[in-house]
Amino acid sequence: MPKKVAAFGEVMMRLQVPGYELLTQADTLKYSFSGTGVNIVSALARFGHNGYLVTTLPANPLGDAAVAYLRKLGVAQDFIRRDGKYVGLYFLENGFGARPSRVTYTNRLESSFNTAPAGAYDWEAIAEGLDAVHFCGITLAMNDTVRGHMVELARAVKRKGGLVVFDCNYRPTLWGEDGYAKAKPHYIEMLRLADLAMMNEKDAIHILGMETSRTVRRDQLEELIPAVADTYGIAAIAGTHRAILGDGTHALQGFLYENRQFAFSGTLTFAVYDRIGAGDAYASGILHGALTGMPSGRTVEFAAAAAMLAHTVQGDTPMSSEAEIVRAMTETAGDIER
Amino acid sequence: MPKKVAAFGEVMMRLQVPGYELLTQADTLKYSFSGTGVNIVSALARFGHNGYLVTTLPANPLGDAAVAYLRKLGVAQDFIRRDGKYVGLYFLENGFGARPSRVTYTNRLESSFNTAPAGAYDWEAIAEGLDAVHFCGITLAMNDTVRGHMVELARAVKRKGGLVVFDCNYRPTLWGEDGYAKAKPHYIEMLRLADLAMMNEKDAIHILGMETSRTVRRDQLEELIPAVADTYGIAAIAGTHRAILGDGTHALQGFLYENRQFAFSGTLTFAVYDRIGAGDAYASGILHGALTGMPSGRTVEFAAAAAMLAHTVQGDTPMSSEAEIVRAMTETAGDIER
Amino acid sequence: MPKKVAAFGEVMMRLQVPGYELLTQADTLKYSFSGTGVNIVSALARFGHNGYLVTTLPANPLGDAAVAYLRKLGVAQDFIRRDGKYVGLYFLENGFGARPSRVTYTNRLESSFNTAPAGAYDWEAIAEGLDAVHFCGITLAMNDTVRGHMVELARAVKRKGGLVVFDCNYRPTLWGEDGYAKAKPHYIEMLRLADLAMMNEKDAIHILGMETSRTVRRDQLEELIPAVADTYGIAAIAGTHRAILGDGTHALQGFLYENRQFAFSGTLTFAVYDRIGAGDAYASGILHGALTGMPSGRTVEFAAAAAMLAHTVQGDTPMSSEAEIVRAMTETAGDIER
Amino acid sequence: MPKKVAAFGEVMMRLQVPGYELLTQADTLKYSFSGTGVNIVSALARFGHNGYLVTTLPANPLGDAAVAYLRKLGVAQDFIRRDGKYVGLYFLENGFGARPSRVTYTNRLESSFNTAPAGAYDWEAIAEGLDAVHFCGITLAMNDTVRGHMVELARAVKRKGGLVVFDCNYRPTLWGEDGYAKAKPHYIEMLRLADLAMMNEKDAIHILGMETSRTVRRDQLEELIPAVADTYGIAAIAGTHRAILGDGTHALQGFLYENRQFAFSGTLTFAVYDRIGAGDAYASGILHGALTGMPSGRTVEFAAAAAMLAHTVQGDTPMSSEAEIVRAMTETAGDIER
Amino acid sequence: MPKKVAAFGEVMMRLQVPGYELLTQADTLKYSFSGTGVNIVSALARFGHNGYLVTTLPANPLGDAAVAYLRKLGVAQDFIRRDGKYVGLYFLENGFGARPSRVTYTNRLESSFNTAPAGAYDWEAIAEGLDAVHFCGITLAMNDTVRGHMVELARAVKRKGGLVVFDCNYRPTLWGEDGYAKAKPHYIEMLRLADLAMMNEKDAIHILGMETSRTVRRDQLEELIPAVADTYGIAAIAGTHRAILGDGTHALQGFLYENRQFAFSGTLTFAVYDRIGAGDAYASGILHGALTGMPSGRTVEFAAAAAMLAHTVQGDTPMSSEAEIVRAMTETAGDIER
Amino acid sequence: MPKKVAAFGEVMMRLQVPGYELLTQADTLKYSFSGTGVNIVSALARFGHNGYLVTTLPANPLGDAAVAYLRKLGVAQDFIRRDGKYVGLYFLENGFGARPSRVTYTNRLESSFNTAPAGAYDWEAIAEGLDAVHFCGITLAMNDTVRGHMVELARAVKRKGGLVVFDCNYRPTLWGEDGYAKAKPHYIEMLRLADLAMMNEKDAIHILGMETSRTVRRDQLEELIPAVADTYGIAAIAGTHRAILGDGTHALQGFLYENRQFAFSGTLTFAVYDRIGAGDAYASGILHGALTGMPSGRTVEFAAAAAMLAHTVQGDTPMSSEAEIVRAMTETAGDIER
Repeated sequence: MPKKVAAFGEVMMRLQVPGYELLTQADTLKYSFSGTGVNIVSALARFGHNGYLVTTLPANPLGDAAVAYLRKLGVAQDFIRRDGKYVGLYFLENGFGARPSRVTYTNRLESSFNTAPAGAYDWEAIAEGLDAVHFCGITLAMNDTVRGHMVELARAVKRKGGLVVFDCNYRPTLWGEDGYAKAKPHYIEMLRLADLAMMNEKDAIHILGMETSRTVRRDQLEELIPAVADTYGIAAIAGTHRAILGDGTHALQGFLYENRQFAFSGTLTFAVYDRIGAGDAYASGILHGALTGMPSGRTVEFAAAAAMLAHTVQGDTPMSSEAEIVRAMTETAGDIER
Repeated sequence: MPKKVAAFGEVMMRLQVPGYELLTQADTLKYSFSGTGVNIVSALARFGHNGYLVTTLPANPLGDAAVAYLRKLGVAQDFIRRDGKYVGLYFLENGFGARPSRVTYTNRLESSFNTAPAGAYDWEAIAEGLDAVHFCGITLAMNDTVRGHMVELARAVKRKGGLVVFDCNYRPTLWGEDGYAKAKPHYIEMLRLADLAMMNEKDAIHILGMETSRTVRRDQLEELIPAVADTYGIAAIAGTHRAILGDGTHALQGFLYENRQFAFSGTLTFAVYDRIGAGDAYASGILHGALTGMPSGRTVEFAAAAAMLAHTVQGDTPMSSEAEIVRAMTETAGDIER
Repeated sequence: MPKKVAAFGEVMMRLQVPGYELLTQADTLKYSFSGTGVNIVSALARFGHNGYLVTTLPANPLGDAAVAYLRKLGVAQDFIRRDGKYVGLYFLENGFGARPSRVTYTNRLESSFNTAPAGAYDWEAIAEGLDAVHFCGITLAMNDTVRGHMVELARAVKRKGGLVVFDCNYRPTLWGEDGYAKAKPHYIEMLRLADLAMMNEKDAIHILGMETSRTVRRDQLEELIPAVADTYGIAAIAGTHRAILGDGTHALQGFLYENRQFAFSGTLTFAVYDRIGAGDAYASGILHGALTGMPSGRTVEFAAAAAMLAHTVQGDTPMSSEAEIVRAMTETAGDIER
Repeated sequence: MPKKVAAFGEVMMRLQVPGYELLTQADTLKYSFSGTGVNIVSALARFGHNGYLVTTLPANPLGDAAVAYLRKLGVAQDFIRRDGKYVGLYFLENGFGARPSRVTYTNRLESSFNTAPAGAYDWEAIAEGLDAVHFCGITLAMNDTVRGHMVELARAVKRKGGLVVFDCNYRPTLWGEDGYAKAKPHYIEMLRLADLAMMNEKDAIHILGMETSRTVRRDQLEELIPAVADTYGIAAIAGTHRAILGDGTHALQGFLYENRQFAFSGTLTFAVYDRIGAGDAYASGILHGALTGMPSGRTVEFAAAAAMLAHTVQGDTPMSSEAEIVRAMTETAGDIER
Repeated sequence: MPKKVAAFGEVMMRLQVPGYELLTQADTLKYSFSGTGVNIVSALARFGHNGYLVTTLPANPLGDAAVAYLRKLGVAQDFIRRDGKYVGLYFLENGFGARPSRVTYTNRLESSFNTAPAGAYDWEAIAEGLDAVHFCGITLAMNDTVRGHMVELARAVKRKGGLVVFDCNYRPTLWGEDGYAKAKPHYIEMLRLADLAMMNEKDAIHILGMETSRTVRRDQLEELIPAVADTYGIAAIAGTHRAILGDGTHALQGFLYENRQFAFSGTLTFAVYDRIGAGDAYASGILHGALTGMPSGRTVEFAAAAAMLAHTVQGDTPMSSEAEIVRAMTETAGDIER
Repeated sequence: MPKKVAAFGEVMMRLQVPGYELLTQADTLKYSFSGTGVNIVSALARFGHNGYLVTTLPANPLGDAAVAYLRKLGVAQDFIRRDGKYVGLYFLENGFGARPSRVTYTNRLESSFNTAPAGAYDWEAIAEGLDAVHFCGITLAMNDTVRGHMVELARAVKRKGGLVVFDCNYRPTLWGEDGYAKAKPHYIEMLRLADLAMMNEKDAIHILGMETSRTVRRDQLEELIPAVADTYGIAAIAGTHRAILGDGTHALQGFLYENRQFAFSGTLTFAVYDRIGAGDAYASGILHGALTGMPSGRTVEFAAAAAMLAHTVQGDTPMSSEAEIVRAMTETAGDIER
């Protein structure tokens, strides 16, 4: 039976230089709309759930375009407010080989989402009947009002028995100098509310200030993640380890810690077409497993395969169906499908 | 001999939906960089002068792209500061026939230009040797710091004997409610500093609150413009009357009032490809006439032809050479040039 | 209060050669999805109603693309079946001036919609709570099973008190030789079920075989339309007269006959960007008037303005909001909106 | 029965800036291959004849692309030599309204065609069985070797009983200073060989130095064209009068003088999409009439309609079938064909 | 001396989403026309032979575009019938890495080719003077009338002494359930007519139901292919073994069994740009070897190199010249050619 | 402190088929302007120096487009003459894997640059205050007048104390048969004038006719380069060794011989997006090191990293800033920059 899942987060316009030109060289941009919340709930809609986005967009042609785009992705619009004046934007120049991709943001702090005042949303109505709600560390970095929204919605969902999911998603440039110190209390507040957290040992060390004498990442993970779960009372924690190999392919391994046990996916190695949003595909796979009662081992394999496929698709937003992910879990890359 | 002309103003990124789709329908944008100041000094550079832009752009890939674009247009970069974080943007959806074009702005108040603090520019160095400097009413609408920059630069140029040009360019959406009342003292301050003003009788009535019993536009113009010149001590005032005809073509007539005399161009009727920036082409034609000592009658014909051609060119920025404008003044539209 | 409106009809893929090249010259196509039903219910959704499409699309990547496109347009998907194998397609080469546009169809008779068997749809569930349902003469031309669907749905809606709308939309190529004779009984069956019909005097003469001694179109209309209303028991009949003028602009006048009275819109003259689907914009305007209780005169002006704007927009599907249509009813074409 | 027709001429690469940008603004070009000969024989192939091009193209990727393009147009390749090093190129910037189109050539004198030496072609083999051969004044402007080719081929065809067609097509920039004087002897040589000439009274006056006291174009035409036919022994002469109207549409009237009688087409008025090559469409219509024995009146109407349609098609090369031209002769511009 | 070769087969329109977007994401398609027969005879035309396609296309704009495209490829049109109503189409979404390409067909059974009735083609005229004719297992899957065409043409060519080539090309989705059983008698019929067959051991096992106790592919091949040749009286059999390697490159080895001897190419390893049609490039290489009397060893190397290059070219149709293939046989990939 | 550097060389228009189609398949080209001199001085401008190009371009729309493009790249225009008639052009078809890229030139010998007569440039003015001037072996291949320009400018710069840089850049197709013999005296003349030469052991062997008994490239280099430096009195010689690896990546090692010592960079291995112009990036890195007094070891690492990054950028012209190159020297390829 399909579940009802919401995400709270900003919708941003992605303006991408096609091909491998720089902004200085080109004169054309492809645009789309995305955001962690968009990626999560549209992926869950693709898996058959009802995905709602809780956000605010302006009532102007940019807001109209964003809303139409979200509709196309299958995102339900019941909780999309139309207010404020601006949509956050970012520009993407694709890297190639030794040259990294570049992301340039415009001022997102003035966006409709980030200026929605306290009291703007009706938390009780949104939380009613929700099976799960998703939050993200990017949103947490915005401002106090937005952080207030997050806490209120998390509490409302918790009260009504829904699952609270929090993806740490720490972005250094958003927190500025002394970022970890600034971020820590807010992360702790969200982790205490979370039933399922997306993070790995680096978040534990850097944001939460935990210490370990181990030097191998896997050892650090196995020591720190259970400690995080205990400290903050989190039922399940999931995340990935990624490595970029010499030939440009990526290697990715997922983990899921629940019921005091780790499950690990195989290490997937694959070519990358569009890196952005792949972490959200992983999170949506974990959440789908949780919502449908998959065993941990299958959940983590499903999530890793979902993440792998998200690297092969244009745009931030995962586009794979459950059937495509299941097939990618079992088959090797083959010839044309016809 | 080429003159040295500067304009003070913001550089904006123009993001245009190609063809006639709406933002909701398309997924591609063409981008360029423009602004009244850009349009004026690049047009003057095309006429053989040295055109400087006095502005601030961020030291990031968007700023780099803007600067490269300005270089391509022939704008000298000696007075372009690199500071702050953002570039102002606007989105353009082309209208067709009965459906008007739509412009949607993002938050330009946070742009590098609009956040450059008092003291950021070295006015003495900029004013040194300038033959003329150009300001625009759009810039005047930004904030007090920017208005402070305008007055300081205008005074510095005046002190050193350069010509101060002010284009009223009143944009209702920038001044908000009670806009005319808010704008009036700032306009008066700039008009008192101006040697050459770009405006027409509507500006006199609405911004300056002048009154007339005449009902025909031409009569109002002939009554009010000399009064403005007298009141504020402005040596020359120029502007246009535009009408949009039933078949979608535009009719444009320019005027130039100097030495207590009006000169009028013929009324040009023409098809329109890209409306934005055509007013700046007119202003640059007037300024070119002033800088090179053309008689009033020729200046106004030259400026009107420059404006007409600017409607036939892609983008905000005039692209016609002096030779092309002179030919358009004398010839009727012909067959292919080969 | 928003109404619940459904349309029964096929979704076709439109494959358009960009610009003015022929299929023989180009190598690129723009695609979108449309159909009379799509156009009607998406326009009504844009006016604030809940628009449902009753159709069948295949469960393959083309069907997925169609469904996502419909979602983007705001069409509710509750009654979209996924079954069968094919999507109907048509190719469009834009005409220019003396050269007419060309439409080339592929075999739509094998499409999912046209092969959905009797019993495929749950008419009772669909009709429940509907305020209106829309049918079109194009659909009527398909085959007996499809005609059976139409009659069953129309009867179910009628039983439950909803409004039945039928747009004659006669397409000669779909009925083949002796088309009018073949079509007549089916049209009569639908007209007897209709509360609101879209047609003009030509349909009365050619399809229904009615005769008139008048020679002026307006006179024929005023004689025959009331007769049609009486004969088939239709509460309201609406339609347009269109003329293509020498300079390529179109002139359009709408009429609405209800309560034994004609209302006529003014004759609108306008430049045309994309002709296809403009008739559906007119029909959706009439239906919006009916659903919201507008007086006849306003309804017909609203519908005519909606049709005019639909000619200025890319694609088959009307894209104008109610506010934009109302503004077009009152204003003359103006300068840029900013 | 299809006829066998050849044209002797250069194939050029056309590099067109898409839309209305200038070379300075854009970064993309559309390319195609054309030339008077290409246009003529491909049009005749479209009318059902066998069209041969006699030309030389280099054996490199540009030559391969040109040859493939000609094949696509239906041009037979039996007489296309592959030799030399270069393809002539021209750049096209589309004008808009008051701004004329601009054509910029590269150095065509070094092209494979213009450097093919005397003796390069086998004239007897080419002339064998030809019903007609076409030459053009553009080719005549190239160099003495090319002019030698023209005369030899014209003589060979004449000897074998084929029709010699010469289109005056005078291009001032190709002949340079004192162009008319330089050109005159070469034109006279070709006109003496011609059975059918394409020209009008301006060619008679400027190239041939004929004089007239009439001042009205039509009168000059009716005086001078019979004189040309007599002087040079030309059986038939055809041409057009074109006017560019105030609203940008063109008005075109064709004439055909044969058997000492003038036939005139109606004056066609139409919107123009791509002007280049329309004269060749007219010439191919005249030639088609001559080859199939149409009466003069029908020939000239057919040719004028062919020219009109050629203005509505992308590229230099006429794309209309005989059926489309015949329909354009009889119908007014209508709605969509479907 | 060039040979005269025909292929019997359908021309399909390929509609490809550019780049790596899905149909659901994009709005643009690139189109071309292809088919096994098209690929074979155009490749042979590129090698200097005269290549004829025996097919049927509709007399509408899609058929015109297909025919022009075939002309561009150098395919002779003497045996292309214009009849029926539809062109078969397929949509292609490019895969990337772990995500496979997807092909979606429209209803090809209604195409002009697949509805051409018995007696539509003049087999005697077509077979006259042919050196070889090519058939493909895809065509064999269509319907009984098409299979009847194949057998009649094969017999006619055999009677007149031409070579009959049959490429097994088994496509599971075309034969449906119990496909191998349904297909077997038709394959046997064609193999009995064939002088040269394209297949490998998998076809022998699955279609022909042959058995082997070997487990290594190469061993199976060496056992079964000679048995097939003996059983059905086939003079030569050729095919490939392909492996997709971990880094996404493909490894390909060709074989040719004739005169009771196997020749094998080296195993080529290469990056793949466009996989579709590469098998046809191999077949055309084998056929070119047969037509020009190459020794087996050189033929199989030539064919393998042709197949490798076909993977590097946009579209289904091989584009390499004989010289380019020969160079690829001898050189390693190098730097820019200039 | 920024240095003043000039390059003498031709500006060519690059016309590139987008993606991987051939000229025969596509219909669109991307254009840009480049040349060794352009690449060198624009890279140095990007490093903060003042870069001048000494060249001639026609006063037509192609020349205007080239000049605007150079301005965008930051090239100073003081020494760009506008004269002559043509711009040299080349067409680029991108290779893929086993299929090499193809470059097709048009006739550059007639270009404005190659027809500028003796005395056209004011060498004294150009040489005044120059810190360095750059020449290239491609230019040396043009004609005697151009070679005369080179020698005159080199001498003028030498006289005034500037550095003379000569890049051997031998292109076989430009010198034709017996190319090395023809080229040798001209190369010797330039090497005698050079303070810094770009070359490797192959140039010494093939152009200068030097001999070595060594067989390993590195050994040959270490023997011959010091001998070249001694023989011709060159203070510093730099160059690269490149290998194309089996998986298509390139390996590149740079060297710099100065003060009788070799410095070698590490061997960089990287994926290649656009190969053209990467050698110029290397040269500009060496020159930047020379101008700013970097130690040899750092210069050669900087130049190699600049060359590596130039392979990842669209177009001939290096686009990396000094900061980006320094980062590439120290970091491994990472994830997205945001």
